[in-house]
Order: sequence, then structure tokens, then C-alpha cells
Amino acid sequence: MSKKELGPQPLLFPNPSVLVGTVVDGRPNFATYAWCGITGGEPPTISVGIRHGRYTLKGILQNMEFSVNIPSADLMKETDYCGIYSGAKTDKVKDCGFEVLYGGLASAPLIEQCPVNLECEVLHILNLGSHAMVVGKIVQAHVSEECLTDGEPDIMKIKPLIYSRGPTARYNAVGEVLGQCFSIGKELKK
Amino acid sequence: MSKKELGPQPLLFPNPSVLVGTVVDGRPNFATYAWCGITGGEPPTISVGIRHGRYTLKGILQNMEFSVNIPSADLMKETDYCGIYSGAKTDKVKDCGFEVLYGGLASAPLIEQCPVNLECEVLHILNLGSHAMVVGKIVQAHVSEECLTDGEPDIMKIKPLIYSRGPTARYNAVGEVLGQCFSIGKELKK
Repeated sequence: MSKKELGPQPLLFPNPSVLVGTVVDGRPNFATYAWCGITGGEPPTISVGIRHGRYTLKGILQNMEFSVNIPSADLMKETDYCGIYSGAKTDKVKDCGFEVLYGGLASAPLIEQCPVNLECEVLHILNLGSHAMVVGKIVQAHVSEECLTDGEPDIMKIKPLIYSRGPTARYNAVGEVLGQCFSIGKELKK
Repeated sequence: MSKKELGPQPLLFPNPSVLVGTVVDGRPNFATYAWCGITGGEPPTISVGIRHGRYTLKGILQNMEFSVNIPSADLMKETDYCGIYSGAKTDKVKDCGFEVLYGGLASAPLIEQCPVNLECEVLHILNLGSHAMVVGKIVQAHVSEECLTDGEPDIMKIKPLIYSRGPTARYNAVGEVLGQCFSIGKELKK
């Protein structure tokens, strides 16, 4: 296939769309991030790329804790809202009707309506230019019981949002199951 | 909704499923990773969590360059194959019939059949326990012309694979467009 060079661009498909929770000046706040990925397994760790100066980064630096909340597609408007407006200017918890819970960490607020919540302690913050990469250790995962199958979180029940750049930035749903990992590739084994 | 604590677990939905390309002992190799995320925008950066001892990490340490290749769903078997078998024991390029190209970096092999290829220079490697988190600066992005809409990469044409943990680990397709980012949330504005 004919390829076009687009220059240095942060192109990854798919990206998740998560609500990062922090406590800023004593108040819970949530902001939407797509630049997020698991970075290790033992201990489980996760990274979020946050632009310098953001209200969320202020909260992380104040408390060195944060949460990652995975919204279902039925929270698309709230998720988008938390990506447009700053907690410095409005109370997004109130605006979105979020019910806020806490687990073991005092500064990692969790959104009750999100089917998956991760409590994180900051391990590293790297300055990567425009963004700080915050690496957190996941100390607890909370999952809605209705989103479990045989005790494991099931993406078809969680129904997370995909964030996609493109001609216009869009949210996509997760589609059908295509195959089983660590299995279907064995068909190519000579 | 009633929540269950699952303990410290690396739960993120969705994860991508990418083929990380390296040159190891002078030979191109590709391995599959889901623990990958964009970490910053200027410059564009990306992280991959790689277990210590992996052949891919050997190649990265040899050359401090790598590629991220995003396979379409029609490469699911090849993608899974590259996640099961080690390049230390088999020639995955040959096994999978990959056509290997190079851009500007001599040690960032690109898979022609993948619609998106990123060339990366290593910026940081952090030891996170079981895994090394490799952060790369994206120096060039190549996208198949047939996957562009108005000059921008279009996820509906790229058709990337989603990797999901669960009762059994599975690949999912990307589903329908649900809404426009930085727009649909404005409906909640009072």
C-alpha cells in the first residue's frame, strides 16, 4: 500500500478515553485524557500524559495520588464535558452529577457511575516537553459487579469509549469480538 | 452500581494492539504489545511496557530505536503470532510474510502491510519492576493513503485491533462512531 509521511505525530489507534481524578485545593476534580497506557504488570503501573499547567497536574503535584476512571459509552457527554472545561473555573462534579467515592487513598476520588476505577500513587513524573508523563502505581482496582464475567472485567459489558483523532476527533464504541489472544496466531505455526 | 475490589491490577479499556519493531543482532523483529500509550504531544512521544529479558528489549538497548506498527484487523493472526513466539527462536518476518521497509531510522523496521507506522528514538527507559517502560520520541509517522480522509488518518479505515483482558483475552474491532469530541459535551453546559 502506498504510504504518506505525515511528520512527527502522536498517532496511536485506539486510544482510551478516561477520567483522571484528583483532589485540587481540597476539592475533587475530573478531567478527560486519551494519552494513557499501562506501563507494567508487577506492580501494575499506568501512565498519563498531562499538559503542563493543567489543573489536574496541580492536584497530582499537591497529593501525589490520582485515580483513573473508565466511563461507559453512556457517559460520553460527561466525559467530553470534562475534556472541554477546566476545574479551575467550574465544579465538574456538580455539573456532571458525579457521585464521588473514595477507596484507600484520600486524594484519589472515584466516580461511582464509571464501571472501572483505579486508585494510583505517583511513582514518577517525567518532563517530556509540552507534557508531563505521570506514572502511577495502581494500588486498587474497583469494577462494577455487573461488568464482570466469571469474576473478570468484560469489555463488552464495560462498553468503554475510544478516542480517535481524525478529520474530526470522535468517540467510537468497542466493536465485536474478532478472536482469542494467544491462540488464533498458532494457526500460522509451521 | 455495586463495585468489587479486584486488588492491584493493570485494568485499562481499551488497549491498543501494536507490533513493536526492532533490529536485534542485525535482524528485524516484531513483537506484539498492548501496554502502549501516547505520553506527550510536542514532541510526540509514546511509551511501551516491555518485560525484562524480552528479545525486543534487547534490540532497543542495542540501537535505542524502535518502531510502532498498527495492524489492521485483517492482520489479527500475524499480530497474535508475534505475541506468542519469540524472535530468539524463529524469524517472525518470514513466518508472517511481512514486507519490511525502513524510513529515516536504520534500526526502526516498518511493516508495509500495517496502515500506520511510527519511527521512534528512545528518550527514556524506566525500570518499573517486572517491566521496563520505554519512552520513544516519534520522529516520523507513515500512514497508508487509503486510510486517510481529508489528509488525516481515519480509524474507520485503519480498523485497528483492541486487546482486552477478560475471562479470556480477546481482540475486538473498533465499533461505530458515537459522537464528536470537544463538542457533544457542550450540551451539558448550563
